[in-house]
Amino acid sequence: MLPAGAKGVFPIAPTPFLADGRIDAASVDRMIDHYLAAGADGCTILGIMGEAPKLDLNEAIGFVAACVKRAPNLPFIVGVSAPGFAAMRALAHAAMARGAAAVMIAPPPSLRTDDQIVTYYAQAADAIGHDVPFVIQDYPLTLSVVMTPDVIRRIVTDNPSCAMLKHEDWPGLEKISALRRFEKEGKLRRVPILTGNGGLFLDFEMERGADGAMTGYAFPEMLIDVVRLTREGRRDEAHDLFDAHLPLVRYEQQQGVGLAVRKYVMMRRGIIATDAQRKPAISLSATAKAEVDYLLQRLARRDPRAARLILAAE
Amino acid sequence: MLPAGAKGVFPIAPTPFLADGRIDAASVDRMIDHYLAAGADGCTILGIMGEAPKLDLNEAIGFVAACVKRAPNLPFIVGVSAPGFAAMRALAHAAMARGAAAVMIAPPPSLRTDDQIVTYYAQAADAIGHDVPFVIQDYPLTLSVVMTPDVIRRIVTDNPSCAMLKHEDWPGLEKISALRRFEKEGKLRRVPILTGNGGLFLDFEMERGADGAMTGYAFPEMLIDVVRLTREGRRDEAHDLFDAHLPLVRYEQQQGVGLAVRKYVMMRRGIIATDAQRKPAISLSATAKAEVDYLLQRLARRDPRAARLILAAE
Amino acid sequence: MLPAGAKGVFPIAPTPFLADGRIDAASVDRMIDHYLAAGADGCTILGIMGEAPKLDLNEAIGFVAACVKRAPNLPFIVGVSAPGFAAMRALAHAAMARGAAAVMIAPPPSLRTDDQIVTYYAQAADAIGHDVPFVIQDYPLTLSVVMTPDVIRRIVTDNPSCAMLKHEDWPGLEKISALRRFEKEGKLRRVPILTGNGGLFLDFEMERGADGAMTGYAFPEMLIDVVRLTREGRRDEAHDLFDAHLPLVRYEQQQGVGLAVRKYVMMRRGIIATDAQRKPAISLSATAKAEVDYLLQRLARRDPRAARLILAAE
Amino acid sequence: MLPAGAKGVFPIAPTPFLADGRIDAASVDRMIDHYLAAGADGCTILGIMGEAPKLDLNEAIGFVAACVKRAPNLPFIVGVSAPGFAAMRALAHAAMARGAAAVMIAPPPSLRTDDQIVTYYAQAADAIGHDVPFVIQDYPLTLSVVMTPDVIRRIVTDNPSCAMLKHEDWPGLEKISALRRFEKEGKLRRVPILTGNGGLFLDFEMERGADGAMTGYAFPEMLIDVVRLTREGRRDEAHDLFDAHLPLVRYEQQQGVGLAVRKYVMMRRGIIATDAQRKPAISLSATAKAEVDYLLQRLARRDPRAARLILAAE
Repeated sequence: MLPAGAKGVFPIAPTPFLADGRIDAASVDRMIDHYLAAGADGCTILGIMGEAPKLDLNEAIGFVAACVKRAPNLPFIVGVSAPGFAAMRALAHAAMARGAAAVMIAPPPSLRTDDQIVTYYAQAADAIGHDVPFVIQDYPLTLSVVMTPDVIRRIVTDNPSCAMLKHEDWPGLEKISALRRFEKEGKLRRVPILTGNGGLFLDFEMERGADGAMTGYAFPEMLIDVVRLTREGRRDEAHDLFDAHLPLVRYEQQQGVGLAVRKYVMMRRGIIATDAQRKPAISLSATAKAEVDYLLQRLARRDPRAARLILAAE
Repeated sequence: MLPAGAKGVFPIAPTPFLADGRIDAASVDRMIDHYLAAGADGCTILGIMGEAPKLDLNEAIGFVAACVKRAPNLPFIVGVSAPGFAAMRALAHAAMARGAAAVMIAPPPSLRTDDQIVTYYAQAADAIGHDVPFVIQDYPLTLSVVMTPDVIRRIVTDNPSCAMLKHEDWPGLEKISALRRFEKEGKLRRVPILTGNGGLFLDFEMERGADGAMTGYAFPEMLIDVVRLTREGRRDEAHDLFDAHLPLVRYEQQQGVGLAVRKYVMMRRGIIATDAQRKPAISLSATAKAEVDYLLQRLARRDPRAARLILAAE
Repeated sequence: MLPAGAKGVFPIAPTPFLADGRIDAASVDRMIDHYLAAGADGCTILGIMGEAPKLDLNEAIGFVAACVKRAPNLPFIVGVSAPGFAAMRALAHAAMARGAAAVMIAPPPSLRTDDQIVTYYAQAADAIGHDVPFVIQDYPLTLSVVMTPDVIRRIVTDNPSCAMLKHEDWPGLEKISALRRFEKEGKLRRVPILTGNGGLFLDFEMERGADGAMTGYAFPEMLIDVVRLTREGRRDEAHDLFDAHLPLVRYEQQQGVGLAVRKYVMMRRGIIATDAQRKPAISLSATAKAEVDYLLQRLARRDPRAARLILAAE
Repeated sequence: MLPAGAKGVFPIAPTPFLADGRIDAASVDRMIDHYLAAGADGCTILGIMGEAPKLDLNEAIGFVAACVKRAPNLPFIVGVSAPGFAAMRALAHAAMARGAAAVMIAPPPSLRTDDQIVTYYAQAADAIGHDVPFVIQDYPLTLSVVMTPDVIRRIVTDNPSCAMLKHEDWPGLEKISALRRFEKEGKLRRVPILTGNGGLFLDFEMERGADGAMTGYAFPEMLIDVVRLTREGRRDEAHDLFDAHLPLVRYEQQQGVGLAVRKYVMMRRGIIATDAQRKPAISLSATAKAEVDYLLQRLARRDPRAARLILAAE
């Protein structure tokens, strides 16, 4: 189960495929090993960037089982968002039975009013069962559902099984401040806030009170170090490291093509064997690959550790 | 397999539930018997109004099997729309293996450009296999995807397995005329066009060249008769019958609550045992039920056959 | 100024144009005369169906002045929705200075959360001045902004200058009931509720507690009679009359092409000289005109008064 | 008139206000002087970030006149997007009469299909007159209208008065490549492509073939230098400079609050007197201001010229 005070970095793991489209079991193991070695505090699988809708239920369950088996002590959060509660329940139960720590639920794009959003999460919690901890995914850019701080407060308050907020509103700095203010004022029980958006605002999100990051940037080492440095009060160092990665973080943060960038870098780093995606997928043009290569060269000059990490693979 | 010249009325069947949420097998049989007796030319199941996302995969497959078993000679079209191709493929194959005649695919709401829509259907056809006939569902009001007549022409032309258009654009009369014009000009092979939107424009849709209706109005007898009368050139009679039902057709055509109206009337008609829906659901207030009852009384005065059909259940 | 207990029928007036695109002053007068003679309780101009964005500010002001001049005792509500408050304020002030009774404000489509909507109306009320009565336009189908009953309650309560609700949610019957319940419970001061959506649900909207209709159906006489008959408790007569018109009401309720239908019927009735619209506009095909003609013939058989009204023009 | 081979940097100018909401004429002059001194090739006013909807028509015209008067030889592009063609035409004519070089038109959010977009621009060109050069604004993130490269090709080809593309698709690198490929293949006449999105991808956009930038980042000097360095083939230097600014560029690129950041920095730089916005506006919290201050300090350490520019104001 997800520890109450969960914090730190939960990488959003991609799903590694072989060129023929099958799940690449060896890369799954290597990727999980990599997250462990880097010092990840948990891991989120089958999220939006995990190509979850391209896996059928049995594949999804098998993937959860393989991840948990590789790292039995790492808390895994499993994305179970679905257009209906039947599929959500089926995957949630199967995932928890195989050792997942929690599930993550994004709201369907049709929700509009505050009450609709609050009601949806109450129904979802009913559907998966109140013993299954769930993470709210607040991602208006992609989902077009806008949750005010007060809506989040209501969901957290109404549902004891709500265990975490994945915050990827954009702009969202004031939202973190507002939620932390609610806590101080006793209006909101404390839930961990991990931030997404590819890490594009992680530097300031940590300063605003986030507990860590839940995102899939291809160098989780940077996320982990920025989180640590900020906690240690080493602000300038945190920003220096963050800024060194920002050109690539920014490049990865292109909707649609972002996953291709991420998988390409992870392949170049030797973490996964191929950058194959299942269809439908956007792949990188030769020019785009050359741009990423150039960014990696530049990164290597600015972050010695990244340089070693890239070199290690070559 | 769906016959090449399919036409007439394919009721959109709701999924009958017991009060405790289980599928009501007896009502399934009775409902299918009812469609057969009324003279339906086919039947569409697990559509948007079939609460498909509330069924897990095994339930969905079981429902398909039960329907086909009850009416082995009736062509069943099975809704397989899904956020990813894995789930779509799984249900499509299972449905066809159990005797379905075709599948129906709605575009995901994120599609915007002409090319995105055309590409999506090409990928979907690849995913389910080119031996599986599919129906395009063109329903911008709910799905927010707008297909021009030319986009439909491209999908039909590019995909030999495209077997039918379910047309529920609104307003959509000119679209039917445009598609029929394409056919006359040799730009488009003939595919059947069945219309939806609860039948709200069926009178004129038939006159514009539609081949029939695919919608779930609680009196499929009316849909069948209007289609027949129009084909026989009995225009005034077709409109007289249609107009008698229009107040109820209109009342049923309320997004969200429409299914509750439909199930309530089917229950009152004795076709299904309860009007239970799985969650999330909008149910009818007492006032709304009284309004439907009043509309049924008025209908009974204007359509003698409907009067008998209502009475038969009481 | 809008009377506190405003009720009845406020037709949404189209803006009559000549074939060359100029405003048709003679038709403006004839149309206003027609509304007066029919017994309208007020009139709404420059609404969504008034082609307001196609008029520049001076034309809009001139149109307001011409309408008020023709019927100085009729309360005119003027649509002032705009992407910014500068244009809204300019038109609101000019309209009130020329004798308008109130203005109507629709929310911009970008609003999502409850608070955003409430804040928007507070800012709009500030912008136009608190001495200018305003009408909330609640029209999610077109505007994609969803207001809960509670959001409406907050807007009405926060803004003393909020003078009316134009309700055209769909489905919206339960919303009327909820608002009237709020009033009974003392949670909401009474504001008139007039309903739109082309009148498609007017029969039951009146029974749910609406105070009348604000819509532009080409036979305002029917709207006026249905409102009156319902108030007098003559339910069956109200529905009989409503049902006679429903086929045409429904035909007019086609987004985009609806205005063309409405202007065509008003032209056939002799109320306006032409059915010209300014660009961009969707015009009626010959087939569509023939369909409307057929509906008018059928209407004439069912509603003797409508028959006379149509004949009168020929 | 806009020169045929326009290129370089056209800053998107904010509209400077005094604390009481009036336009700040002295700041307007100082801002335009600043753009000239920095080496801007043109200037775009009354864009989305120019708070255009908060100005009434006379104010907008006065602002255009003041800008042109201050820099008669600088080509000014004036945003004229409006919900209707009447307002668009009025502002376009007034702006051109006062010396504007061209106008910029964004598509209304309701457009969906390829043909709708193409038709809209044809109608807009008709409305403003074919002697008025116009710029296409392609900004799906905010406008939700997605234009394929082919749609842009059609608009450019159909409308001789189309004079430029403001590209702010995101991700949009491949779109620039596709358009340049069309040109090479003779399918598209050459129009300048200036890029937006706050400059977040300017480094690679230039390398893909963009002709410059049209965006309002608070250090136009950086935009100008990156454009120049890229043209001179000094890739690493261009990226070094760009990367130094990227943390602030990224911070400014927060929807809604971005303009507040921009005005705050321009105020700190002494370019405008206050960071006042007209309502509705999002203002910076004290924390946010401190974050921007910190980013400016860090920027000063990495870009000596920026350091001088910031110091100059203090």
